Amino acid sequence: MDNVAFTPNKDGVVIIDQTLLPNEERIITLKAKEEMYDAIYRLRVRGAPAIGVFAAFGLAVLADKIETDCVDSFLAILKEHADYLNASRPTAVNLSWALSRMFKMAESNKQRGVTEIKQRLFKESNRIRQEDIAMCKAISAHGLSLIKDGDGILTHCNAGPLATSEYGTALGPILLGTEQGIKFKVFADETRPLLQGARLTSYELYKAGVDVTLICDNMAAMVMKNGWVNACFVGCDRVAANGDAANKIGTLGVAILAKHYGIPFYVLGPTSTIDMDCKTGEDIKIELRDGQEIKSLFYEKPMALEGVACYNPAFDVTDHSLITGIVTEKGICYPPYTESIANVM
Amino acid sequence: MDNVAFTPNKDGVVIIDQTLLPNEERIITLKAKEEMYDAIYRLRVRGAPAIGVFAAFGLAVLADKIETDCVDSFLAILKEHADYLNASRPTAVNLSWALSRMFKMAESNKQRGVTEIKQRLFKESNRIRQEDIAMCKAISAHGLSLIKDGDGILTHCNAGPLATSEYGTALGPILLGTEQGIKFKVFADETRPLLQGARLTSYELYKAGVDVTLICDNMAAMVMKNGWVNACFVGCDRVAANGDAANKIGTLGVAILAKHYGIPFYVLGPTSTIDMDCKTGEDIKIELRDGQEIKSLFYEKPMALEGVACYNPAFDVTDHSLITGIVTEKGICYPPYTESIANVM
Repeated sequence: MDNVAFTPNKDGVVIIDQTLLPNEERIITLKAKEEMYDAIYRLRVRGAPAIGVFAAFGLAVLADKIETDCVDSFLAILKEHADYLNASRPTAVNLSWALSRMFKMAESNKQRGVTEIKQRLFKESNRIRQEDIAMCKAISAHGLSLIKDGDGILTHCNAGPLATSEYGTALGPILLGTEQGIKFKVFADETRPLLQGARLTSYELYKAGVDVTLICDNMAAMVMKNGWVNACFVGCDRVAANGDAANKIGTLGVAILAKHYGIPFYVLGPTSTIDMDCKTGEDIKIELRDGQEIKSLFYEKPMALEGVACYNPAFDVTDHSLITGIVTEKGICYPPYTESIANVM
Repeated sequence: MDNVAFTPNKDGVVIIDQTLLPNEERIITLKAKEEMYDAIYRLRVRGAPAIGVFAAFGLAVLADKIETDCVDSFLAILKEHADYLNASRPTAVNLSWALSRMFKMAESNKQRGVTEIKQRLFKESNRIRQEDIAMCKAISAHGLSLIKDGDGILTHCNAGPLATSEYGTALGPILLGTEQGIKFKVFADETRPLLQGARLTSYELYKAGVDVTLICDNMAAMVMKNGWVNACFVGCDRVAANGDAANKIGTLGVAILAKHYGIPFYVLGPTSTIDMDCKTGEDIKIELRDGQEIKSLFYEKPMALEGVACYNPAFDVTDHSLITGIVTEKGICYPPYTESIANVM
């Protein structure tokens, strides 16, 4: 199962609506920029790498619909579209990275004219996707070198094929190993409030024939205490130059628990997720979302009184001191991260 | 808001059905032993002290319906009823403690005859409730001495009035302080899978005018990292002689996070929750519940595929080394717990 259908389609970007999983596998085509923005904001498409690929395709589709032959006008409108899509979610760097790469490519081909740029934008978006596939495979192979047959792996949120292209990042080593006949026992945190672990990770792993056990986030400590976890694998949405890593809310807690129990904690992601402009995690902007996601989304009835306040950060930042290694397509970075990250960049 | 209506009522035991909160405040009367068992098992009544009081009243009601004048027959049936109710949930000691106390009282009054024993059982159950009220008040006062105006308090699950009699244990200091005009900022973990924090704690605190913010369990680390928490207060279901404390699943994780951030972590509960027969936490039996609670309870649609396995322990055990103090009605126990607990017992 791959997220998409991420094909260069002039009509629109085709994705599986992740908000409906696992109960319905609905394929949708997003044509207008508002639909694309909404798809990112509402997590119909999610996962840092997947958002990047999606935004690149989206921008190519939107570019194709710009009706002008004047390159300067075209680029001005293209910039508007890119800025608009970029505002949909602030934390994952891949979104701004992909949009910025697309726009720069367009700009640097200014002399070729609008028609040619439009074609090149489709090609570039497809290149981003192909690169993502290759990166995920490389990450998976590097990650697989860290674990062995029979290991218990705990993961948080979803960094599998749905979040990326093909293998995924955090789930990549597990899926790659499974293909090779290696057996793992995976514990998937359900990942409140949006339940990506329950809805997506357990779904992907179960369908791939992996031995997966779903737990509530607050059970991770007991699972570790029971001695069932040999390593934690998580994805990332933005990594600072010092190795501080933003990922789905709850990741920080898993890292602290892993440290307490002496379990290695690995962050897996492509180097495009590393933002050298962020010196530390403090420079990473954390998205705050509506408290209704906690109180009433998914539920038959509201689970707390209307007036009760909620705090609903979508991400947290795990301090580099809690991270055993950062697995990229170019290899595994170990502490001191300022050095090892500079080396892979 | 008190849990009950826990009044000595010959007709049945009257409680508020906690599974329907916060959307409906339905009062139910439980007459048959099967209804009582079911009410405990399904958490219509929950919270270690409340379960104890409930079971005591339940046994008094059931005893009253035993149709025999033969004391030996009466005691044999009474024992059956007590054993039956005791099997409903294994972890909270208060259940077996209250039932055992009731039965022993009956046995030791054997010479007085069935009618007199029946009356004394009602009185005894009411005494258990009155003692619980007094203990909660004392615990609240001791706990209040640990915090000050403006403090941020994080709590897990529900150890408020609904879980006990009157003030509660973990929420007792907050409610008592609020009555005295002291302001706290409380963070309530929603407490998956049964959402006692969302449904009950935020409900009780909000209604009491306390500044409460609901968070998902996996956000506790970030809230602590933000510097918003001065102390953690949690209840307990069974405490071993060495201070290891069983409480709602997720408590262990909160304790580890608190230790990581240097935040004091307090367990609050009556000495009746201390089980000197358990030398360490390893002697405490942990209840495992149905995985459907994780996958489909409360939800409009299932949140994971039918075939996905779940691990659903209802409790975990927090090692005494992670606990700053255990607040009982007789005072606060500090490490070394083997000594301080022996002193209060």
